[in-house]
Amino acid sequence: MLKECLENVQKTAPLVHNITNYVTVNDVANVLLACGGSPIMSDEPEDVEDITSICGGLNINIGTLNQRSIEAMFRAGKKANQLGHPVLLDPVGTGASKLRTETTDRLVKEIRFTVIRGNISEIKTVANGSGTTKGVDADVADAVTEETLPGAVAFAKGLAERLDTVIAITGAIDIVADKDTAYVIRNGRPEMGRITGTGCQLSGLITAYLVANPGNALEAAATAVTLMGAAGEIGWSHMQALDGNSTYRNRIIDAIYHMDGEILEAWAKIEKM
Amino acid sequence: MLKECLENVQKTAPLVHNITNYVTVNDVANVLLACGGSPIMSDEPEDVEDITSICGGLNINIGTLNQRSIEAMFRAGKKANQLGHPVLLDPVGTGASKLRTETTDRLVKEIRFTVIRGNISEIKTVANGSGTTKGVDADVADAVTEETLPGAVAFAKGLAERLDTVIAITGAIDIVADKDTAYVIRNGRPEMGRITGTGCQLSGLITAYLVANPGNALEAAATAVTLMGAAGEIGWSHMQALDGNSTYRNRIIDAIYHMDGEILEAWAKIEKM
Amino acid sequence: MLKECLENVQKTAPLVHNITNYVTVNDVANVLLACGGSPIMSDEPEDVEDITSICGGLNINIGTLNQRSIEAMFRAGKKANQLGHPVLLDPVGTGASKLRTETTDRLVKEIRFTVIRGNISEIKTVANGSGTTKGVDADVADAVTEETLPGAVAFAKGLAERLDTVIAITGAIDIVADKDTAYVIRNGRPEMGRITGTGCQLSGLITAYLVANPGNALEAAATAVTLMGAAGEIGWSHMQALDGNSTYRNRIIDAIYHMDGEILEAWAKIEKM
Repeated sequence: MLKECLENVQKTAPLVHNITNYVTVNDVANVLLACGGSPIMSDEPEDVEDITSICGGLNINIGTLNQRSIEAMFRAGKKANQLGHPVLLDPVGTGASKLRTETTDRLVKEIRFTVIRGNISEIKTVANGSGTTKGVDADVADAVTEETLPGAVAFAKGLAERLDTVIAITGAIDIVADKDTAYVIRNGRPEMGRITGTGCQLSGLITAYLVANPGNALEAAATAVTLMGAAGEIGWSHMQALDGNSTYRNRIIDAIYHMDGEILEAWAKIEKM
Repeated sequence: MLKECLENVQKTAPLVHNITNYVTVNDVANVLLACGGSPIMSDEPEDVEDITSICGGLNINIGTLNQRSIEAMFRAGKKANQLGHPVLLDPVGTGASKLRTETTDRLVKEIRFTVIRGNISEIKTVANGSGTTKGVDADVADAVTEETLPGAVAFAKGLAERLDTVIAITGAIDIVADKDTAYVIRNGRPEMGRITGTGCQLSGLITAYLVANPGNALEAAATAVTLMGAAGEIGWSHMQALDGNSTYRNRIIDAIYHMDGEILEAWAKIEKM
Repeated sequence: MLKECLENVQKTAPLVHNITNYVTVNDVANVLLACGGSPIMSDEPEDVEDITSICGGLNINIGTLNQRSIEAMFRAGKKANQLGHPVLLDPVGTGASKLRTETTDRLVKEIRFTVIRGNISEIKTVANGSGTTKGVDADVADAVTEETLPGAVAFAKGLAERLDTVIAITGAIDIVADKDTAYVIRNGRPEMGRITGTGCQLSGLITAYLVANPGNALEAAATAVTLMGAAGEIGWSHMQALDGNSTYRNRIIDAIYHMDGEILEAWAKIEKM
């Protein structure tokens, strides 16, 4: 599965439309190029329907949302839905502000998402909806640990069923789930949290994998999550004594650039639950 | 010509006003600093006339255009024209959406551009105007190859004459032409296409070269195109086994930082046609 | 003082809300992560009050201001003032346009800033207010040199008193002053000026230091300025023959990532005046 999903991306060079934040957008573009895809960015409402039409998939990231880009998200999302393109939602910071929480809620109600990816707090806010701006689900602890994993997997599957999507919860342990099946991935390094935008980069990657692996969203997303984690470990293994988070950022993207199916399978720590 | 144009930039530190996309803007700024110029970014309509007035030239890039920045492009462009500053247009993605194609068409009609730089598809859309959103000129094949080069050179010269500008078509083979003369440049590496924004960076460079070489737009633009390609080759020659596109981006900018007239002339593959 | 201020940041991981320009925003985020802080970016007026409320401090940078982000600056600034959060102003390019000068003037009048940081020309414009868009104070020469230092220190102290803030003037020699005391810092490298955004990065750092060192704004700001300069020197000492400004950017952030109290004290060139 890993090798096939990866090679489908490298063979087909999927074109991904990104409506994303201006903080990490350059890294998202370079990661998409590194994996063999191709990025286009556009967030002007008058432009996005045309742009999304020539792409294979749409990556919506609310990291620096504004009134203009919110309108663009809805117009592009609806167009991509009409065209049958995969659409990913990265609800950055949902729960941290009323605007983010309400926008996420409206997006989830009005757009059909193929994958929703976030950290556990963001995904809980997605689950709890607009009524609770900093909602905490008492049944699932905030960080996914070995102890809380079974509950988190059940939560992810349940939410995936309710929203008819694939849920990707990323953190120290990653969960990628549809209603029936979850992949648990233990790749990655804690130091990735010291680089801005590794989550945003992953959302771009997942979208490219969705485009190149049609009808196979769960495996495509799980492969992309594994790829990002493995690249984080490979990049770390190449760090020199004086290298810090800025160089680490480059090394992760470089590792994605050099990834192939064999390397990915050798590094993968993925299991089905 | 190459050495003189380059040294004029390093001696005079041209200040360039950029209205550019948020994807590659940081790299555009660092490339301008690397070549010896100085960047300013501003895309608020109420701000751009003042900012462009204190600069030597204006770089307009429509990569992530929006209604506000489009207004800024027209206000800054007209002001720069009044002041006799060189103005460059980088019509990113024109032909890919109605908004991009129409904005490009209006810009070309209302602003006097010193140079218009794009890939062959973008320049064809410039040539065909607003009537055809994905116009393909049957007389010029999409990629410029050794076979199609004579036709592409003739197309570039003809368009340069019609629009009274310098046309720069960049790709595997680059063409920089006014109505009478074309420079053909064979520097660069295909791997530059795996880095986001090498085209945007080049547009920034060309603008700096135009400012520092007044009255000599054709040679200034051809030198900047040669510089970017040579830096791509030099940067590539410094790549280590594990380096990928993210490190390559740094190495290209570093190569521009270290460039001098002798190095540029030694690497240049440029001919007049 | 240096060691304590630095360790307070590393221990408390201050969350900083940044309303900053899209040119250098990624570097600001990575620098905040490198120093041990955590960044959030938001510039939508409807979003900023909520976001600033969950943060410890606010960094306002007018580098690519627009009508929307200006409104966000005022709303976030007033909210941060109500909450007693430290607020920093980086008046990028004030004096270069009417909009920048007037916005700076209104910000200084309506928001209580803990620190205002800029180059000498920007700080002079702050001092002279909206009446003079390119104001030059004849009593203080434009660059701070050993000769003009006493006058510049007196100017900084006077402005700090008048605006009831800490003034940080950065350049070849840095001055950080309140009404009574000035720190003069001689760290840094001239080559830092060949990287875009080292000033913006410093403003992010200072804000994190203000949050982690409450009631100690002068020392916190002076420590952050010393840190940035020392990182510039350490990063430079790690440069290889072919490295240029793009790699230098990475090495400075990497040096901040590895900084500790002992290293900082060993490199510091700071004196009280």
